[in-house]
Amino acid sequence: MINREWHLLSRPVGWPKPEDFALVEAEVPTPGEGQVLVRNKYLSVDPYMRGRMSAAKSYVAPFELGKVMQGGAVGEVVESRAEGIAAGDHVLHFLGWREYAVVDAKNAVKVGPTAVPALKVESGDVPLSAYLGVLGMTGLTAYAGLLRTASFKEGDAVFVSGAAGAVGSQVGQIAKLKGASRVIGSAGSDEKVKLLVDEYGFDAAFNYKNGPVSEQLRAAAPDGIDVYFDNVGGDHLEAAIGSLNQGGRIAVCGMISVYNNTEPAPGPRNLARLIQTRGRIEGFLVGDHYDLQPQFVQEVAPWVASGALKYRETVVEGVENTLEAFLGVLRGDNIGKMVVKL
Amino acid sequence: MINREWHLLSRPVGWPKPEDFALVEAEVPTPGEGQVLVRNKYLSVDPYMRGRMSAAKSYVAPFELGKVMQGGAVGEVVESRAEGIAAGDHVLHFLGWREYAVVDAKNAVKVGPTAVPALKVESGDVPLSAYLGVLGMTGLTAYAGLLRTASFKEGDAVFVSGAAGAVGSQVGQIAKLKGASRVIGSAGSDEKVKLLVDEYGFDAAFNYKNGPVSEQLRAAAPDGIDVYFDNVGGDHLEAAIGSLNQGGRIAVCGMISVYNNTEPAPGPRNLARLIQTRGRIEGFLVGDHYDLQPQFVQEVAPWVASGALKYRETVVEGVENTLEAFLGVLRGDNIGKMVVKL
Repeated sequence: MINREWHLLSRPVGWPKPEDFALVEAEVPTPGEGQVLVRNKYLSVDPYMRGRMSAAKSYVAPFELGKVMQGGAVGEVVESRAEGIAAGDHVLHFLGWREYAVVDAKNAVKVGPTAVPALKVESGDVPLSAYLGVLGMTGLTAYAGLLRTASFKEGDAVFVSGAAGAVGSQVGQIAKLKGASRVIGSAGSDEKVKLLVDEYGFDAAFNYKNGPVSEQLRAAAPDGIDVYFDNVGGDHLEAAIGSLNQGGRIAVCGMISVYNNTEPAPGPRNLARLIQTRGRIEGFLVGDHYDLQPQFVQEVAPWVASGALKYRETVVEGVENTLEAFLGVLRGDNIGKMVVKL
Repeated sequence: MINREWHLLSRPVGWPKPEDFALVEAEVPTPGEGQVLVRNKYLSVDPYMRGRMSAAKSYVAPFELGKVMQGGAVGEVVESRAEGIAAGDHVLHFLGWREYAVVDAKNAVKVGPTAVPALKVESGDVPLSAYLGVLGMTGLTAYAGLLRTASFKEGDAVFVSGAAGAVGSQVGQIAKLKGASRVIGSAGSDEKVKLLVDEYGFDAAFNYKNGPVSEQLRAAAPDGIDVYFDNVGGDHLEAAIGSLNQGGRIAVCGMISVYNNTEPAPGPRNLARLIQTRGRIEGFLVGDHYDLQPQFVQEVAPWVASGALKYRETVVEGVENTLEAFLGVLRGDNIGKMVVKL
């Protein structure tokens, strides 16, 4: 049986180029004791993967050259040599970028209606892909960054960049559901801006390509902001510092605007404003906050099941299009979580 | 009786010029009910005063044009119309930049050996000027910024800029006394660097004018830093972010490097590093932390009295030299707290 998997051939400089990668055919591996063979149904592609393509020391090891890359995936167990997981079960694991994966059972989490008690109450209709997004790593990223890193509290005015993305759209809606006084989002197209207001219930939104971020933010949040959830860095971060109210908190989730820079870009020119506002900027990684996962599922899954919390997916079909899907995330082509359906 | 007092005539653009100020003669005012007349003995000059010379909205109101400026001062009560304060008492108050001041009793704090119980045990020798520095606002600034904002804990490696200054020298010593694994300081002259190591017991120090801060910091702290106490901003802040260990905290006390800029200077180019380090940058103002004052005096006064915590003062004599003393602080002429003795 043939397995198709994506290898990293060379470390991209600037924007990744197709020749940095190859879709390689290999034999489907056989599970050993304590392992399961999974046929992946959905692969996750996420901006953070760009970091693993570089050799620089980071919070996760770089992808190895000439080997298959990794990422979130959900699939169906086709063969099990592990206790507690049977053929036919669905599992979430971390060996994406390929069709078939042999996964250690300890690194596989059973998902689906029977595996998430909070969902059983309402509905079993949550699709498998949701475990890569709204109920998975991206949802927890939004939840932990907003509630823990940014210390969100009822009545805060919240600004989020990359707001139409998988994380950003959850940040804004969770803030609203938990009593934000005002939620403002920015995105890179008028279509996305409309989506933020009409579908996700943001109080205000703007297209950052239509004018200076600082001016558009000031117009959208005339009384300032208490929380900024940063997905992009750059001029968004400077604008947020400029609009920060006293005691404001900035959670830095990502800085997609600088990921492909070959030269370091100048940082915000107004950091001294942190003194008078007693402002805080803090970076976080979802990996430090998995202790919040039960609380997160408990609180968010019913919102998902009832439709109170909306999400979108951009689904690309076919393992051969995984690279293009990933590049699309970097370009901002997606609305909501980008997944690849196999 | 003639009072001499410093007025602000025009708001400085860039570096303050002598013609922005005037030393004006006026009648010594008469205290009303509940007030005391104080003959100032020491005036405080501090970098933050530059901010009050601008019209920009800030955490304290701007100085008013054509009126006397304000600042910390300590002096002797010459006439009292207030309960609990008698002629001959010494008080700390906020009406500096002048020889005589009429102060509301509620804004005057009695100081001296009889007023600070923690000092009585050891020694009454702490000079009055100490209440403007090591046991006053600058000491509390160091204490609160290090312990509360930067969440200092035993074993941390601590870097402080402006380390020979009034605040910086206290930060480094308090960190050492409370169990820092390593304390590194930067300053603007080789003489100051020597002082940091020889007198204040820093483990390493460097002259930021002798080479790139990032390289000098990396050499002085090869294992990175856990805490950075920022007094200067600019390339120091970028270097500190570059050397920040996982979970590192940066307390922003001041950004003296940018106070006189007429154009905003580019910020640190490496803020994305906050993500992988889960780093934190937080501004603070001592005014929010006066609740720590009793704990601060309790802990620090015995160190001062025993000589375990050293401090220096740069004393300029004569009210007519107050402006020059203030400009000297901005230039970095001072070693330790700059005060004006009247």
